[in-house]
Amino acid sequence: MATTKQNTEKKQRPKLRVIPLGGLEEIGKNMTVLEYGEDMIVIDCGMGFPDEEMPGVDYVIPDTTYLMRNAEKLRGIFITHGHEDHIGALPYVLQDFHVPVYATNLTIGVLKNKLSEHYYEKEPDLHVCRAGETVRAGVFRVEFIHVNHSIADAVCFAVHTPVGTVVHSGDFKIDLTPVDGEVFDLHRLAQLGTEGVLLLMCESTNVERPGYSPSEKSVGASLEDIFFKNKDKRIIIATFSSNVHRVQQVINASAKYKRKVAITGRSMMNIVSAAIELGYMTVPKGVLIDISEMKRFKPEEITLITTGSQGEPMSALYRMACGEHDRVELSPRDLVVISASPIPGNEKLVDKIINQMCKRGVTVLHSGILDIHASGHACQEEIKMMHALLRPKFFMPIHGESRHLEAHRKLAVSMGMAPDHIFVPELGKPLELDRRSAKFGEPVPAGRVLVDGYGVGDVGSVVLRDRRHLAQDGLIVVTASIDRDSREILSGPDLISRGFVYVREAEELMDEIRSIATDSIQESLIRGSIDVNRIKNRVKEDLSEFLYSRTKRSPMILPVVICL
Amino acid sequence: MATTKQNTEKKQRPKLRVIPLGGLEEIGKNMTVLEYGEDMIVIDCGMGFPDEEMPGVDYVIPDTTYLMRNAEKLRGIFITHGHEDHIGALPYVLQDFHVPVYATNLTIGVLKNKLSEHYYEKEPDLHVCRAGETVRAGVFRVEFIHVNHSIADAVCFAVHTPVGTVVHSGDFKIDLTPVDGEVFDLHRLAQLGTEGVLLLMCESTNVERPGYSPSEKSVGASLEDIFFKNKDKRIIIATFSSNVHRVQQVINASAKYKRKVAITGRSMMNIVSAAIELGYMTVPKGVLIDISEMKRFKPEEITLITTGSQGEPMSALYRMACGEHDRVELSPRDLVVISASPIPGNEKLVDKIINQMCKRGVTVLHSGILDIHASGHACQEEIKMMHALLRPKFFMPIHGESRHLEAHRKLAVSMGMAPDHIFVPELGKPLELDRRSAKFGEPVPAGRVLVDGYGVGDVGSVVLRDRRHLAQDGLIVVTASIDRDSREILSGPDLISRGFVYVREAEELMDEIRSIATDSIQESLIRGSIDVNRIKNRVKEDLSEFLYSRTKRSPMILPVVICL
Repeated sequence: MATTKQNTEKKQRPKLRVIPLGGLEEIGKNMTVLEYGEDMIVIDCGMGFPDEEMPGVDYVIPDTTYLMRNAEKLRGIFITHGHEDHIGALPYVLQDFHVPVYATNLTIGVLKNKLSEHYYEKEPDLHVCRAGETVRAGVFRVEFIHVNHSIADAVCFAVHTPVGTVVHSGDFKIDLTPVDGEVFDLHRLAQLGTEGVLLLMCESTNVERPGYSPSEKSVGASLEDIFFKNKDKRIIIATFSSNVHRVQQVINASAKYKRKVAITGRSMMNIVSAAIELGYMTVPKGVLIDISEMKRFKPEEITLITTGSQGEPMSALYRMACGEHDRVELSPRDLVVISASPIPGNEKLVDKIINQMCKRGVTVLHSGILDIHASGHACQEEIKMMHALLRPKFFMPIHGESRHLEAHRKLAVSMGMAPDHIFVPELGKPLELDRRSAKFGEPVPAGRVLVDGYGVGDVGSVVLRDRRHLAQDGLIVVTASIDRDSREILSGPDLISRGFVYVREAEELMDEIRSIATDSIQESLIRGSIDVNRIKNRVKEDLSEFLYSRTKRSPMILPVVICL
Repeated sequence: MATTKQNTEKKQRPKLRVIPLGGLEEIGKNMTVLEYGEDMIVIDCGMGFPDEEMPGVDYVIPDTTYLMRNAEKLRGIFITHGHEDHIGALPYVLQDFHVPVYATNLTIGVLKNKLSEHYYEKEPDLHVCRAGETVRAGVFRVEFIHVNHSIADAVCFAVHTPVGTVVHSGDFKIDLTPVDGEVFDLHRLAQLGTEGVLLLMCESTNVERPGYSPSEKSVGASLEDIFFKNKDKRIIIATFSSNVHRVQQVINASAKYKRKVAITGRSMMNIVSAAIELGYMTVPKGVLIDISEMKRFKPEEITLITTGSQGEPMSALYRMACGEHDRVELSPRDLVVISASPIPGNEKLVDKIINQMCKRGVTVLHSGILDIHASGHACQEEIKMMHALLRPKFFMPIHGESRHLEAHRKLAVSMGMAPDHIFVPELGKPLELDRRSAKFGEPVPAGRVLVDGYGVGDVGSVVLRDRRHLAQDGLIVVTASIDRDSREILSGPDLISRGFVYVREAEELMDEIRSIATDSIQESLIRGSIDVNRIKNRVKEDLSEFLYSRTKRSPMILPVVICL
């Protein structure tokens, strides 16, 4: 009888499984699954950007095979805030699942804008929630808690589960003087800490930076200073379109110094109008003008807010820098302020537009020479505050490269946490918890899916390897037709070369290639039965060897042999 | 008679022409020409590295067409120091010119090592000079003046010309406590300032950074601190192989803490042995061991100095991080110190190896979290000191991107220099000077030459455009043979696809492509005379349109039509 009872109890008490499907070993494509028995929720659904190993790829999204296999369990997707690395995969994921999505007002606003570019058979099921609210999803109760971040209306989640409370930090900083007056909800987090937290999952982006991240308001002060000192110039400010509070501060400074504000860049216009409509931004009457009205004012009466703070090719600022913007021509009477730091990997792009603008005589201020940006991510002392408030039993660092997760692990140890209560996660490896213990379980399918144009997942490692090869050394197509009976070459070998050498100045080399290919084909034709594959391989080998010894390059060689 | 005299005087007094052939709008491939009448010298002869727009390119060197056209005038090449961006193009340039090269002892040592990998009909004509020495080259007298930099034995040049003295700063910092005790030659520069300087050409790398660059010795103090605190670990230090003083300080700290020092990485071994041989480095007896002897000691008795501080693929540190180094296996008992800053563009590479090492449990210290690197380039106050000592009549900022040249211009103005005495240079645009005046003249040929494998200059804009296209979307080769008489397709169309989609999972798409190509060929065959080019263009157009609408990608389409 005891055995049966134990079995029943085992069945009644499954473990809580926490499964990261993204956001590890990179900053991007955040996605975490919480699973308990027959219920499952997902927190965030972000995309990442391709690195230099993935030429031609547009986006990277998480592999959702595990969700597919458990689709009937899925009770909802909860989004912490409206940044691409938290919502960017939703348009794709919602093609596969019709499941409720819960997020705050601004996040839903940003999301709707994204979803409008895709087609859905069934309208996506979006729910606006407020910080303080709790949503029931199967056995889970998901509580929305306000945090500060570089986009407004960001939250962290306290997920109340049958085995205890799990806190997922989302992206956050602790801003004690936020632009909208809404301080990070210290009180609720302190209360949760008192009640008991089973697991904290906390973001790690800035864990290597000591101290505190400066308040967003400090950027406002720098901006005002710039406006005060540059009354004779048109001021152009580039920042992240999603940084509603930054844009608000630019508008405030402009209004104070009697400037009109124009906006350029599609995403900037989208977000500003959404933010105004939803009440996240207030613009004094008469300040905002259309970019077409700019010419009615003197340059020094204008502030222009633009996208392109990352030097993105074809962004509005990029087009201005290259003299290709149809409305804005830069001159020495312009001051450009890049109010953002380059995201790792974008440094050269940002460099490039700064140089282009300097060549046009524009004065450029950027975060490398002036404090005109504040990060939206918690630095060490803020992260410690999160740990100190919540006093979690177990801890899992998330949202970071390996170096960040490891540094976060050390930070937790330095605060007195037992090393065996800290779980540095791996993609697809579930952390299985009950009220008292936690350990890693067997991995589930996880990884990345590449999006290229309309194709989702049709570009894999073979395609990428070929692209890299072609980018390095180009290709040579060798075409010949042969007569099966006479064993003679009927036409060719002819060459097409792309990305290898400038053919008009390499005629001698081309002649040699043709002559070697001719020999290779003829020698293959002499012996044995005619085997087109054998001939092609022979041509490939002979040419590869010759070209490498001659040029130290290895173009892709594509022989085409037509046997008639 | 007066006219004749004037003519004669004009002939006797040509202008001094200063022509930058590299080092502008980029940090790299430094090269400046000084020309007076029938004499010409070159200062520095560096290479640059390709950017992301130049896939497959190994190096970039300056276009030397102008030197070619004036080869008979060339009296010598003068090198400021042994970094790649100052000597890297010499192996190529010396293939074209047999001309004396003048440089200091260590620079010549580094150079010999490089030249040994190339073949020359006539042995290069290398001359070792010492700081303080003056070399006569045609009408020019070139004076070697000691400066501090991140490689030992660096100099700037005072070139005494018929119209006045021109100072070329090379790369420098002002280190008042240098590791080798040899302070920047303030006295000689002050003297030149007293005697009168016509033109200063000054480097601009760090002109955006306020204050002073810290002394190299401060890095020594940080290193000692690290050695003191990590007595239980093997210490692995990555730095630039050319930073002889940094390596010296690592050796000193190791000796102090009774560690043996092993060296790995080809360039590190080359430079350390050259530096010891030439007396630029002193190693206490018994400290240096071969890497094969490491196993005879406990890990905590070892310091390993390695290349790879920029995360360069296949460097020694990269191989360690990936578990591919044949002698070194990393473990949690290792401390890795990356004693260098990432060069712009290398941030992601450095990130990658740090992450790899963190995954192996290694503790990694890098310049992002600790002061373990000092730049070799002057910051604002040092640059001002250079201007203040020399008090030049005219000034030309060099060695920097547009943003740096512009910032340097502003710095000079802030020191009271007349704006019309400052000349922000452009590649190939000569500054023409006499004793009293300076102005820009007509441009000479200048630009960049790409080196790919053994090919110098055979990769141009068309080849690069094709490589970028291939990298983005791959290619499809469409092959068919047709019968001229019957106007029928004899074979094909067959497809080869590379870098486009994973063909095995896209059979349907491939079938459609074949069917469209068949239609295109057949329709072309019906009408008019048979024109292979017309058929190929039709196939290309039809497929491009179809593929873009279907996949939103534009693979390169290469039709091969054989007409029999």
